[in-house]
Amino acid sequence: MTTQPASASRGPVTRKDVARYAGVSTAVVSYVVNGGPKKVAPATEAKVQDAIRVLGYRPNAAARALKLGSSETIGLVVPDNTNPFYSLLAHAVEDAAAELGYALLLTNSAGNLAKERRNIRNLAARQVDGVVLASVVFEPDLVDLESAEIPSVLLSHSDSQAEVTSMGVDLVEGARIAVEHLASHGHKNIGLAMGTTTGDEADGREQGWLKALADAGLPEGPIARSAFTREGGYAAGKRLLASAQRPSAIFASSDLQAVGLLRALHEAGLSVPGDIAVTSFDGSVEAEYSWPPLTTVEQPVREMAEAAVRALVGADRGEPPRHRVFPTRLLVRQSCGCP
Amino acid sequence: MTTQPASASRGPVTRKDVARYAGVSTAVVSYVVNGGPKKVAPATEAKVQDAIRVLGYRPNAAARALKLGSSETIGLVVPDNTNPFYSLLAHAVEDAAAELGYALLLTNSAGNLAKERRNIRNLAARQVDGVVLASVVFEPDLVDLESAEIPSVLLSHSDSQAEVTSMGVDLVEGARIAVEHLASHGHKNIGLAMGTTTGDEADGREQGWLKALADAGLPEGPIARSAFTREGGYAAGKRLLASAQRPSAIFASSDLQAVGLLRALHEAGLSVPGDIAVTSFDGSVEAEYSWPPLTTVEQPVREMAEAAVRALVGADRGEPPRHRVFPTRLLVRQSCGCP
Repeated sequence: MTTQPASASRGPVTRKDVARYAGVSTAVVSYVVNGGPKKVAPATEAKVQDAIRVLGYRPNAAARALKLGSSETIGLVVPDNTNPFYSLLAHAVEDAAAELGYALLLTNSAGNLAKERRNIRNLAARQVDGVVLASVVFEPDLVDLESAEIPSVLLSHSDSQAEVTSMGVDLVEGARIAVEHLASHGHKNIGLAMGTTTGDEADGREQGWLKALADAGLPEGPIARSAFTREGGYAAGKRLLASAQRPSAIFASSDLQAVGLLRALHEAGLSVPGDIAVTSFDGSVEAEYSWPPLTTVEQPVREMAEAAVRALVGADRGEPPRHRVFPTRLLVRQSCGCP
Repeated sequence: MTTQPASASRGPVTRKDVARYAGVSTAVVSYVVNGGPKKVAPATEAKVQDAIRVLGYRPNAAARALKLGSSETIGLVVPDNTNPFYSLLAHAVEDAAAELGYALLLTNSAGNLAKERRNIRNLAARQVDGVVLASVVFEPDLVDLESAEIPSVLLSHSDSQAEVTSMGVDLVEGARIAVEHLASHGHKNIGLAMGTTTGDEADGREQGWLKALADAGLPEGPIARSAFTREGGYAAGKRLLASAQRPSAIFASSDLQAVGLLRALHEAGLSVPGDIAVTSFDGSVEAEYSWPPLTTVEQPVREMAEAAVRALVGADRGEPPRHRVFPTRLLVRQSCGCP
């Protein structure tokens, strides 16, 4: 008689051993070990955990990946995960991936093309099952993913890379409703705090601003271009306040810029919306807790993240590449002048 | 003569083939493929990339992991990566890990113990090389990591799990200087907006608030307990304003709570710091761009993240477990009453 588990004498403990000991299927052992994709009843999970402990089972992820030809991971490439828009995206992608049994590899590119290329190459080398790319200032270089046959989804606002699935919102229409809303409050001089991109054509938000002004029969207000950051918005705000024709309302092309813009307005002793009204773009939670709370165009980040994961490793896997446009909506709060 | 690459007739292309074709060492090929750990000159990198393309080389991460016994990944467990404190932590851990050639697996636990256990088990099953755990409300259950012999580092404020390396700031001292600063502005009734934890003993921030009041010979001000969130701070602010002895200054135990508190104060038509002064804790960028900008106690997140990665997979790997205390400093802005 021995007190050693039976497995001690016959090599490594397998998933089958655990399943037999716990009286469950090997699939159930997988779900417990991998935390999904299916849920396991607490009592069953306890039995499996007990079997794992008693038998000393140690799953081998590398062997499993080699066998499956899958690392069961999704890569995410963002400029900066501390930007609330991208932190929400990362959270939503992580949730949607976990639901399907995939883990999330997070990479930050700092808006730096060389760093983004390195991150993409690194994800390709790690044989992730798919990559979600959110590049704020340029179109990502997908050659490393393509040569490794790794599917990717772009978060972008046009289908300029037609051979890749992409998703985004209609920037022109989103900006148009935010500016139209300012015009509906009676503003005649509506400025623009615009984030800078390296693309050839004008950003859709700038086009939407122009469109709303034209539709309302208003002249073009002043523009200040700056980075898509709090600091950028602060600088843009100072410049707009110094412009010859100071606007009575400003549309900021991102919430972060609006937060910086608000600081510039507060420092100048101006009241918002009394002296200058503001609307912005993104719909991040920081915009809800700024002072005053920002009226902003919400991008459905969670829906886009879920669709991206579905396209990479879920139900929509293998569908032909296409560009999907998601609806925006105006979240009306107080910065616009609404009560 | 054939135009096929030479490798077509002799099975899979290896790293050695790429190195020979590019005229570099296999180590250099590794650096290019993995994006590190050492930097490669752009011209050399181009040669290697060229060789990879021409030969059709595809590195096999799973085979490599099996051989190395390492997945070259670090896991991060946070309650919610959209909280600016944790998003900064995730960014800093990603940077420090990438520097050493490791990628970051991000998991959110939503302050939910069952979800945190699943995430930890999942990371263990994926054979990460180490895990950084930041649990806001409870001590994490490390049994799955320990049984897989995966090292972990806790971000916490005491060494209550003595067998694990942990790092954090001295909460008592940090809070003490934030409250002492309010007292130095002449405030006699200083309230506390305190985040709720499930620990047995009072949070260090509450102790630091009490200590500063005792040192200054002041009575205990009112306390409102709520979640460590913007919403929590907003609710706490409303309760403090309704208290029988409304405080003239409030210390908030996190920046997010302070952001919510500011909203409650603004909505009540109060000026900050004129009517009520505020200081808070964390030092996140959101505190810099609130209105007014928050005077806050900065936690050195980046330094802690770098030390955590060093302890897991860097120079400090294998050192005996210990608790490391990092210094805090008061970032003086305007919410306290300083000019």
